[in-house]
Amino acid sequence: MPEPNAQFLLSLLLSLLVHLLSSSLPSTCHPPPRFLTPHRRSFPRPTLRQPFSRYKYDTRYFDQDLDHFSFSDAGKYSQRYLVGDEHWVGAQRRGPIFVYCGNEGDIEWFADNTGFVWEIAPLFGAMVVFPEHRYYGVSMPYGSREGAYRDATTLSFLTAEQALADFAVLITHLKSNLSAEASPVVLFGGSYGGMLAAWMRLKYPHIAIGALSSSAPILQFEDIVPPETFYDIVSNGFKRESTSCFETIKKSWEALIEEGRKENGLQKLTKMFCLCRELKNVDDLVDWLSSAYSYLAMVNYPYPSSFLMPLPGHPIREVCKRIDGCANGTSILERIFEGVSVYYNFTGDVECFKLDDDPHGMDGWNWQACTEMVMPMSTSEDTSMFPPSEYDLSSFEEWCSSLFKVKPRSTWVTTEFGGHDIVATLKKFGSNIIFANGLLDPWSGGGVLQNISDSVVALITEEGAHHIDLRAATDEDPDWLIEQRQTEVNLIKKWLDDYNQARVGAVSVM
Amino acid sequence: MPEPNAQFLLSLLLSLLVHLLSSSLPSTCHPPPRFLTPHRRSFPRPTLRQPFSRYKYDTRYFDQDLDHFSFSDAGKYSQRYLVGDEHWVGAQRRGPIFVYCGNEGDIEWFADNTGFVWEIAPLFGAMVVFPEHRYYGVSMPYGSREGAYRDATTLSFLTAEQALADFAVLITHLKSNLSAEASPVVLFGGSYGGMLAAWMRLKYPHIAIGALSSSAPILQFEDIVPPETFYDIVSNGFKRESTSCFETIKKSWEALIEEGRKENGLQKLTKMFCLCRELKNVDDLVDWLSSAYSYLAMVNYPYPSSFLMPLPGHPIREVCKRIDGCANGTSILERIFEGVSVYYNFTGDVECFKLDDDPHGMDGWNWQACTEMVMPMSTSEDTSMFPPSEYDLSSFEEWCSSLFKVKPRSTWVTTEFGGHDIVATLKKFGSNIIFANGLLDPWSGGGVLQNISDSVVALITEEGAHHIDLRAATDEDPDWLIEQRQTEVNLIKKWLDDYNQARVGAVSVM
Repeated sequence: MPEPNAQFLLSLLLSLLVHLLSSSLPSTCHPPPRFLTPHRRSFPRPTLRQPFSRYKYDTRYFDQDLDHFSFSDAGKYSQRYLVGDEHWVGAQRRGPIFVYCGNEGDIEWFADNTGFVWEIAPLFGAMVVFPEHRYYGVSMPYGSREGAYRDATTLSFLTAEQALADFAVLITHLKSNLSAEASPVVLFGGSYGGMLAAWMRLKYPHIAIGALSSSAPILQFEDIVPPETFYDIVSNGFKRESTSCFETIKKSWEALIEEGRKENGLQKLTKMFCLCRELKNVDDLVDWLSSAYSYLAMVNYPYPSSFLMPLPGHPIREVCKRIDGCANGTSILERIFEGVSVYYNFTGDVECFKLDDDPHGMDGWNWQACTEMVMPMSTSEDTSMFPPSEYDLSSFEEWCSSLFKVKPRSTWVTTEFGGHDIVATLKKFGSNIIFANGLLDPWSGGGVLQNISDSVVALITEEGAHHIDLRAATDEDPDWLIEQRQTEVNLIKKWLDDYNQARVGAVSVM
Repeated sequence: MPEPNAQFLLSLLLSLLVHLLSSSLPSTCHPPPRFLTPHRRSFPRPTLRQPFSRYKYDTRYFDQDLDHFSFSDAGKYSQRYLVGDEHWVGAQRRGPIFVYCGNEGDIEWFADNTGFVWEIAPLFGAMVVFPEHRYYGVSMPYGSREGAYRDATTLSFLTAEQALADFAVLITHLKSNLSAEASPVVLFGGSYGGMLAAWMRLKYPHIAIGALSSSAPILQFEDIVPPETFYDIVSNGFKRESTSCFETIKKSWEALIEEGRKENGLQKLTKMFCLCRELKNVDDLVDWLSSAYSYLAMVNYPYPSSFLMPLPGHPIREVCKRIDGCANGTSILERIFEGVSVYYNFTGDVECFKLDDDPHGMDGWNWQACTEMVMPMSTSEDTSMFPPSEYDLSSFEEWCSSLFKVKPRSTWVTTEFGGHDIVATLKKFGSNIIFANGLLDPWSGGGVLQNISDSVVALITEEGAHHIDLRAATDEDPDWLIEQRQTEVNLIKKWLDDYNQARVGAVSVM
């Protein structure tokens, strides 16, 4: 199997995770709120075609209605989807169809980074389908990315509901084309894709019989979970490795601000942090460091990985070793730089760092965060290592207005998809959903962490980070990960068995 | 209690049922297909305010997003809703909220004709809410009916999904305003409103704990039920009263056509059927008769009623008596006229009949039928008493294009809401839905007629017609109707008990 183009993957992964975070880091008390934005540095933008993939699939396109929920003349767009059918046992044998709910990025990248689905497909004789999410990758309305992202009017159809309807229409079309109406569909998704998978199972039970929803913060809305949850988990990830590391980081912000206030302070910081351009504002450095810590918590995997950046196993441990290790003779800020270099420069190839070159880039996730995906986040002075910050909806609204001329609908997601009182709501409603969460992952704080019913279950791993279960198996997988994946396989098998059993000997289902 | 304004109710009822039927009667083999259109005769158009109601409620308005599923600048519209809270036990005691899913007509009319909900509200200490469906009654986007119905662009937001989202947003807002987040919501609906109630329970389980979906043909799509079902049930309604009546009607079409072909035949028919204007086309008379038979089947109630027209109890029996009774010395067509007069002129007040004065009126249900609610219907020569006709999607599309410049999405409803394989799909998914159907009602053919699970149940009455259970109790209610309503009350009570039980002693639901 050829190695994937690491550089390319990195760029995609980075862009994805940054998108996910960019609108959710705490705002400071200075309006307009700051949001972390992509740290692009030396990585190229995603190109339209990936040179090679480790999995075998066909790339196809489907004409979708741009607007499923009104009959305006919005027209069509071409949705890309990937199909791997080499293991499919066919329609006659009700061969299952595994659908990954494409999220906010290039679908080829998701296909390449969701090895689990490819690896279990042969066990089930399943076809694998990866539909791309509208407005990402090459699935662009209005002919191009530029056209699609022109303004609020062209962006207006970038919503989760429209994306789910795309999936529903596409799956119905594919099954009909293959005379595979009786083939059960199982959904997969990680992060926002995991939210889509869970919501799709709930909203379209006639389309899919179950969903593996991994690291999906479907409760990270309104006041369902405390707003400081995310950054508390990040902080705890550092504290569990080393209290002094946690304390050093916690103290570093004040040191940064003090340094920045000094004469030539910004110049000194520029040099100390090896920045390519002179620092104009300490806040930019604060963001750059904060985002590194958050990403480190997300990808705090037990083995070396290149999910976001090339990193050692247990990367937070490594960061803290460096922060704690050179205590003698080095300042707090020098130690912070040493630590963060694990994240930004583990390979040692980087000559200088660009903090950010496009602070207000109109990217898709910012649009989604400014419309539906309003996730309140703050940091607590007591429990986190981050600078304290409040969540402030009106500052956020101002930011969205300046960026897109759009007003967030901050209560819409819970109205449309629920979230409040979810255990009682779904106890006797719905079935066949796995909410998988690793507790090291800061997004797990907004996840479903308790079993809801016999078949709507929470699968929690103490040592897991952001949807590690969906990644390809490696030789270094710890036992708990192997077990987690086996549990997922067993549950999916049960869904399929139940489905087939209900249809054996059935004279007529209606 | 004051008597409702019968004339007004009639006009509304007529308009409602005609809407429901108008796009679903069989097309003939002559394109463009004919559709039954409102027979308005001497009844006035609905006025904006009903002079009095038999139930006590406040009328309120709520600013709704016109487009819930995209972020275009479609703006807002003012949705009317009626609130009756005199029996509500309040938020503290988790007083239930009964919501009737307004369908394609003026909400005051639905409120006045859904006595069941008002009558059981005191038993449950429930608040009653009747939200109006967008684009009906006074809930008009673009400032007025004229503005809303101007063209396909202004009509484009008239969809079931948008209406359901309206209900979801409104209910969430009401509960929040009353601090009644813990109050359980139960949905009610008849006909298209029953479809909305069932779909809403399935799509928004976090908003409503259960739904009484009465006479809701949610399976009247694509090939889920045979297209001839509706007219077969109408025909059987006549056959069960009298085979000779059925046969006479079946033979009458040929007699009509023959008569129409004769010299002065149309003139003669005009006189025979007491038409106000000279008949130009036999087809118009065919439609006028066909629709009367269909409506008679829908309102074939066991007691005298004024649901659609002032009618005796068992009106089909009365029609057939007249058709069969005067066999000597009268022609088939004279007998048909005698029979149909039961429907169109039971009071004997009508001097002449207008077949139709607005064959292509842009009414809301026609729009919905031309976009989402594509219900294939045909008539069978073997089993029905109607002239044979095929269902022809392309003729239908032409008609919709000529009427609205819109193309129906004929497979959308089943993609969005399901329908195929419904028993297996919902067997382990969903809960708390009653599908109530009376088998005399031709819409029951597209209804759910078997239990799906313990709490998704079919409640069938052999002698029931179109959502009679939702009407106010009368002294003449037969035992089966009293029992049906009691069963519904018991089931709703169980839903509420389950809901409250799950919350007693719960430390934290999430």
